[in-house]
Amino acid sequence: MLLEGRHFFPGADPRSLGHKALAVNLSDLAAGGATPRWFMLAIALREADEAWLAAFTEGLFALADRFDIELVGGDTTRGPLLTIAITAMGEAPSGRALGRAGARPGDGVWVSGAVGGAALALVHPELEGATRRLHRPEPRVALGEGLRGIASAAIDVSDGLAGDLCHLLERSAVGARIAYERIPKDEAFAGLNEPNTERRCVLSGGDDYELVFTAPDAHAGALGELGRALDLPLTRIGVIEAEPGLRIEDAGGRLIDFGGGYDHFAR
Amino acid sequence: MLLEGRHFFPGADPRSLGHKALAVNLSDLAAGGATPRWFMLAIALREADEAWLAAFTEGLFALADRFDIELVGGDTTRGPLLTIAITAMGEAPSGRALGRAGARPGDGVWVSGAVGGAALALVHPELEGATRRLHRPEPRVALGEGLRGIASAAIDVSDGLAGDLCHLLERSAVGARIAYERIPKDEAFAGLNEPNTERRCVLSGGDDYELVFTAPDAHAGALGELGRALDLPLTRIGVIEAEPGLRIEDAGGRLIDFGGGYDHFAR
Repeated sequence: MLLEGRHFFPGADPRSLGHKALAVNLSDLAAGGATPRWFMLAIALREADEAWLAAFTEGLFALADRFDIELVGGDTTRGPLLTIAITAMGEAPSGRALGRAGARPGDGVWVSGAVGGAALALVHPELEGATRRLHRPEPRVALGEGLRGIASAAIDVSDGLAGDLCHLLERSAVGARIAYERIPKDEAFAGLNEPNTERRCVLSGGDDYELVFTAPDAHAGALGELGRALDLPLTRIGVIEAEPGLRIEDAGGRLIDFGGGYDHFAR
Repeated sequence: MLLEGRHFFPGADPRSLGHKALAVNLSDLAAGGATPRWFMLAIALREADEAWLAAFTEGLFALADRFDIELVGGDTTRGPLLTIAITAMGEAPSGRALGRAGARPGDGVWVSGAVGGAALALVHPELEGATRRLHRPEPRVALGEGLRGIASAAIDVSDGLAGDLCHLLERSAVGARIAYERIPKDEAFAGLNEPNTERRCVLSGGDDYELVFTAPDAHAGALGELGRALDLPLTRIGVIEAEPGLRIEDAGGRLIDFGGGYDHFAR
């Protein structure tokens, strides 16, 4: 459920909004290893603005068509706050969907693409690459499908790498040790020289919609092939440990206080 | 999608709200002849109020358990306006789901139970039976299942009998002639002697969640048996005609100007 003023700014470009509202759901399907099939859209609008709706649906269906997912129902109502709720459904072969509970000590922790860019765009909206990450996230659907039978657990980075990884660790009843240096960072950080901003965006920024997943190291070769086939970097950033909790080390081996992910009810 | 201040009053009883938020979705499934299976809940809350959430989920799951429908996902966020979006899914045997497009000239037009009570509760909140209809609607799930193979088209009364029937007529490319006197009216109208209120509530009031459906008269006997089996009155209120449009006649055969159903974007 996306709320104006909370998940997007009032006046946000409707075409990007249509894209993102579906993309975040496709990302959830990807994290489950599911192939997108059907979605439903409930929307509350302040007024019946034809031009706005045309642009919104253009963004929505451009993505829907690309992933061959069909709108099968929904609801339109009027309300004081633009609100968009999409429910997406997909399919995976029986027994081969990905979950969050399967990570085991010794598994590698991997992340796709690069992270931190979407959060950076909130600080530096002039950085076009980062801003595109924020407004036009690319759901990792093909990766999710490819991870069936390879990954032991997966989640998408919607609330921040550290926080989302913590959800996976808790559900798997394990911990992890991560090397901050190994985390692939959005290329927009390269010229910035703002290490504190970088660390905050990379560890606690949300909205990247990359996948974080775990896999036994026996599958490292298969992951290399998968990443090449998809032209998508897959990076091993750490290892699952039996001891609960997430430990992120800097280059000197010191633990980083990352302060957790995004808490929807924090004041 | 239910919005505070639009679909329910601020401060509405959370237990009833939990019931109704799911009931309106089960009613849609019923109109499709579907057996409820799974649902997802997205909710925006102003704050994490444990007592409110406990009461809401109690109302929600009391109904969910009764119809054996399982919560399989969802989303919780914080927002300035209490907003509830439920997506419910069900199943019907292949080719036997009910639609809106199958009504044919000569079919009878039927309605289940009695209508107008929910809208009456907005005018006379002291009438307990009517108020219960408004806040605790009973989705006609067993009726929807029983209408498979009998009804030619069906819709639920969410926005008002006349307006919802018009949707069905338009989708079926037919018209209908209805006798106002035959429409089963909520028993709360009996002692009121407010004919204008009654007519408005019965024809244009929403939120009753009865089913309006059409069926060839050859099925009248089967409908009689079904109504008895479910202990639910099923009343033939008119007939489908080839000429488009909805014509509602009073006891003297004069056409009633019913003014249409509820328009979500009317000012």
